[in-house]
Amino acid sequence: MNIVLLSGGSGKRLWPLSNDTRSKQFIKIFKTDDGSYESMVQRVYRQILSVDKSATITIATSKSQVSAIHNQLGTDVGISVEPCRRDTFPAIALAAAYLHDVQKIPADESVVVCPVDPYVEQDYFEALKRLGERAAVSDANLVLMGIEPTYPSAKYGYIIPKDNENVSRVSMFKEKPDAETAKTYIARGALWNGGVFAFRLGYVLKRAHELIAFRDYRDLYDKYDTLTKISFDYAVVEHETQIEVMRFGGMWKDMGTWNTLTEAMESPSIGKAILNDACSNVHVVNELDVPVLCMGLKDIVVSASPEGILVSDKTQSSYIKPFVDEIDQQIMFAEKSWGSFRVIDIEDGSMTIKVTLNAGHKMNYHSHERRDEVWTVIEGKGRTIIDGAEKAVTAGDVVTMKAGIPHTIIADSALQLIEVQIGKEISVGDKTKLSIPSRVR
Amino acid sequence: MNIVLLSGGSGKRLWPLSNDTRSKQFIKIFKTDDGSYESMVQRVYRQILSVDKSATITIATSKSQVSAIHNQLGTDVGISVEPCRRDTFPAIALAAAYLHDVQKIPADESVVVCPVDPYVEQDYFEALKRLGERAAVSDANLVLMGIEPTYPSAKYGYIIPKDNENVSRVSMFKEKPDAETAKTYIARGALWNGGVFAFRLGYVLKRAHELIAFRDYRDLYDKYDTLTKISFDYAVVEHETQIEVMRFGGMWKDMGTWNTLTEAMESPSIGKAILNDACSNVHVVNELDVPVLCMGLKDIVVSASPEGILVSDKTQSSYIKPFVDEIDQQIMFAEKSWGSFRVIDIEDGSMTIKVTLNAGHKMNYHSHERRDEVWTVIEGKGRTIIDGAEKAVTAGDVVTMKAGIPHTIIADSALQLIEVQIGKEISVGDKTKLSIPSRVR
Repeated sequence: MNIVLLSGGSGKRLWPLSNDTRSKQFIKIFKTDDGSYESMVQRVYRQILSVDKSATITIATSKSQVSAIHNQLGTDVGISVEPCRRDTFPAIALAAAYLHDVQKIPADESVVVCPVDPYVEQDYFEALKRLGERAAVSDANLVLMGIEPTYPSAKYGYIIPKDNENVSRVSMFKEKPDAETAKTYIARGALWNGGVFAFRLGYVLKRAHELIAFRDYRDLYDKYDTLTKISFDYAVVEHETQIEVMRFGGMWKDMGTWNTLTEAMESPSIGKAILNDACSNVHVVNELDVPVLCMGLKDIVVSASPEGILVSDKTQSSYIKPFVDEIDQQIMFAEKSWGSFRVIDIEDGSMTIKVTLNAGHKMNYHSHERRDEVWTVIEGKGRTIIDGAEKAVTAGDVVTMKAGIPHTIIADSALQLIEVQIGKEISVGDKTKLSIPSRVR
Repeated sequence: MNIVLLSGGSGKRLWPLSNDTRSKQFIKIFKTDDGSYESMVQRVYRQILSVDKSATITIATSKSQVSAIHNQLGTDVGISVEPCRRDTFPAIALAAAYLHDVQKIPADESVVVCPVDPYVEQDYFEALKRLGERAAVSDANLVLMGIEPTYPSAKYGYIIPKDNENVSRVSMFKEKPDAETAKTYIARGALWNGGVFAFRLGYVLKRAHELIAFRDYRDLYDKYDTLTKISFDYAVVEHETQIEVMRFGGMWKDMGTWNTLTEAMESPSIGKAILNDACSNVHVVNELDVPVLCMGLKDIVVSASPEGILVSDKTQSSYIKPFVDEIDQQIMFAEKSWGSFRVIDIEDGSMTIKVTLNAGHKMNYHSHERRDEVWTVIEGKGRTIIDGAEKAVTAGDVVTMKAGIPHTIIADSALQLIEVQIGKEISVGDKTKLSIPSRVR
């Protein structure tokens, strides 16, 4: 099976865990059999491989997620990197060109496209496999997955099939209705449109070439920022008459809000939390080192991260976005290609950060114009390159860098350091990337 | 007026703001006219002085609170320091000896004793003044304040007066009853015993000498740890037949629980907090730098501090103590005589602390056996003494101290530094206090 997972934008609906730089699909919230936690993207990746261990998995995503994907899935996974965000049609066209030109997938093979963040069981991926198999042999150009509705939701579009067979031609599509209208659709046999579909690779490449002038993957990648934002539904699905829908009756939840996310949690809390007996239907996700104590709460979600603290009635949590949009704050935690950082103190003339480097990784060689920096290594072994001079460092070593001095650190083992930045105008923009001088490379 | 304020133990009922080292009376939670916040002890101190600007105010407290008292009230306030905790009779005896021998208050002057943490208005302190005036002239040895009950509380002891006059002889005392019994007491004209009373200084000194063999204040102080723990009620009040009670009908609340504390808050939140319109009767006290977002909550208190996060139904919050007792955690924030510290990161082999020194103050000269330390000054000017050598430091300067090396820092202006401790067995006990060598003193 060739599968393209669409890994969407940052999203603030799961604040304080998700924010401008941290997407919900990377939050480790699902307990695995060995007691550790995995993220949505890790869960889905694992589930696909357990259904088809030779699956070609490609994640279509923006540049900003590449580090997190490599950190969580390793480097075997294919990534179709969108240079900027241009909605789903350009993203799928680029991924198709990537599969054909880079991964060398033949044009007559089928490809399944699916969002990266459904909360589903194994049977869903078995259904994806059947979807791909059907697309390979069908005379329809597109085969959609139609999810059997469990309630008249106003959150999804609906697909009305021609008949009740497992695979049926599509009679019509309906935009997100109100709940009353949704009931009438369901009475007519309508299915949810979960944005999951399959096609032969050549079909989407042909449609892409009809709508965009490009030679190959590289050319499309280079002109990506000039493309018009348009969804795959508007650009392709609505104009296609040869469409089938395949029914899926298994468990399917999208993890868009705290309410649905907490439904998928196996235990009432992750992280340090104490809930007294008077609590009912309470979930806590605590990423901080200090405890959360909950007493006498009902139907509430509490989440604490370096970015802030949410305490919300579960139903109310779906209205979170405008409130989070108002919060204008320094990013306090981020995953990077080389590890992660966490801001641990902010003052007018200083900022203190804990930096974690994965073994074998390094920061970019860089300098700052308007701040001095002091590193104190607290764990691990590595080497610093300061103004061209390499030096071994270990826990307890201190490195000072005046403004303007180029510097980097290479982690020979997993390494942590405390970085104190001192200056009057500390900003993430004050960073000049440099090349390491050849004599130390 | 001579007044002794009893400043009690640590108390965990207002966790995460109060804990083993931080008492509720020092939490800045009450908004003043100029928009800043004051603590219970600051509020009470200000209120007493506005009723009687020449009042002699003495705080009877343990050693551990002296720094916080000086930080919050300055150094003019008298402090009777209890070398260890021995309940209220020894504490009041020691304070009486302190007033007589150190403050030179004549034995025939009256003294008012009152807890440091009632939430009251000006009229309460005017009543205290009248209580003291009455004690000076009365033929009773003790004059108690009797608070007119507003409901049949099971939390307080009751005083049953002989008559309904403003000042009356006491008929009997009743221990904390259940609510039903409290109703019958109130029907008989009973008043709450708020632990407020006045006496002529000589009376309590006489009782103290009868019960404890001591010469003077110094002697009592030196043998304080040998004294038996006993309350003033058991040791004195219950044996005294010459007792009056003076009625007080004004506002009186004790700030023992989050429920009563939040009733005294003027606005729904202190610190960074966002409450949506669907919140009702919600209070937030947030000491962290990141925001708390509350959505759709009712009758809930949220408090966040470096120690942890509490989310509690207001009524349930009175059951907090056993849960906090279970939390066995590093102290994350503390006020010291020289300023304060906050733990900002903990790892297996390191701990990172932000240290704030008040201008003109210094740490003790000390060394550690099992950890190295690195200081990065982030604000202010001062001098370090490292292994006997003095050196000026300012923001950006780095000082490294290997295990065993004696060190201190003197703040010439308000000064902040980041201290990284590195070692396998970091413990507050690993500290040897030393004398600064005479050549640098």
